[in-house]
Amino acid sequence: MTSQNISMSVINRLPRYYRFLNYLKLSGVTRISSRELSEKMGLTASQIRHDLNCFGGFGQQGYGYIVSELRDEIGKILGVDKQAKMILVGAGNMGQAVVTHLDFESRGFMITGIFDNSEDKIGKIINGIPVLDWQTVEEFCKEHTPEAAMICIPTSACKSVAEKLIGLGVNCFWNFSHYDIALHYPGTIVENVHLGDNLLTLSYRFRNNS
Amino acid sequence: MTSQNISMSVINRLPRYYRFLNYLKLSGVTRISSRELSEKMGLTASQIRHDLNCFGGFGQQGYGYIVSELRDEIGKILGVDKQAKMILVGAGNMGQAVVTHLDFESRGFMITGIFDNSEDKIGKIINGIPVLDWQTVEEFCKEHTPEAAMICIPTSACKSVAEKLIGLGVNCFWNFSHYDIALHYPGTIVENVHLGDNLLTLSYRFRNNS
Repeated sequence: MTSQNISMSVINRLPRYYRFLNYLKLSGVTRISSRELSEKMGLTASQIRHDLNCFGGFGQQGYGYIVSELRDEIGKILGVDKQAKMILVGAGNMGQAVVTHLDFESRGFMITGIFDNSEDKIGKIINGIPVLDWQTVEEFCKEHTPEAAMICIPTSACKSVAEKLIGLGVNCFWNFSHYDIALHYPGTIVENVHLGDNLLTLSYRFRNNS
Repeated sequence: MTSQNISMSVINRLPRYYRFLNYLKLSGVTRISSRELSEKMGLTASQIRHDLNCFGGFGQQGYGYIVSELRDEIGKILGVDKQAKMILVGAGNMGQAVVTHLDFESRGFMITGIFDNSEDKIGKIINGIPVLDWQTVEEFCKEHTPEAAMICIPTSACKSVAEKLIGLGVNCFWNFSHYDIALHYPGTIVENVHLGDNLLTLSYRFRNNS
């Protein structure tokens, strides 16, 4: 099974399959056809077969998929059985809410350090983790070797933060800022969360729905 | 100028153009070619010309785009000059953080009411708006006629909340839950924010980067 050359749109659908299969498993469903799965998910059956075939194919013609097996396989592909060390940079409202709200450890990562440069926040405990002074990040990275960072700081501060972290061996970013890390550092892996852009897209669709 | 039949991928790029042109305008840039814009944004010049042509075309061959004009035009297309009334349902960490962190009014919406069903939260003031009892939503909607809702509640509660709101005339949703509103109510306009899915995609890319 190879994961090369799989389109981003297929990859972006995988978490949804995983989530849905999880739900089916918890609901006691043991087997499902691609047709049934497609109806429940609002996709076409052929799209589902195509997507899953990208990863080597699961299920058998006329028999369907075994829910728990397919869930576990997709989970493994997504990396839910591992936890890469991730730091949060920026302990404002947004960073705090996401770290408190979301179960990182079932999604391939583990928050192992939180950094801020504001005296109001340094020393505060978020989800059991103390907020450290950004000035100490170099020391921390040398000792704990985080591989990923969640960036929740104003765009103006991002250039120097990204540069610093990349120099310290972090090359994977969950980026909530508007600084375009991937454009400036082509070797990095970046997923952007642009809530403001998403709200603007909703605004467009709301006004062009006739 | 028609906005029919424009692909979602073009629409999803518009907020980024708007954001970028805003930045250029603030930086004092008055005119830009599609080639320069493409280099700064990490897109191809032909993609930019294609995207902007979907909306009737701006700029002139050999002259480029006038930054402030293009920004204003895209802003109008996105609806930044209007504010639709939106309510927040669910005043937990995430809902609070987003409402506090993000400027809705420059993105086509205005939060006019906040609802929760927990006694801990009812009566609390978030960004100047009191959290009201979900039980009073019908009365509120009849008086204030919100057209959109931001949904920040557990998935299990979403079915009844969506049904209620749709019955009260709300058909535009910014959905932070995993309940698939668009699948169950085909007439609605929904943008989903699935932070957990986005983190899983990052996990996949992190582990398949060789």
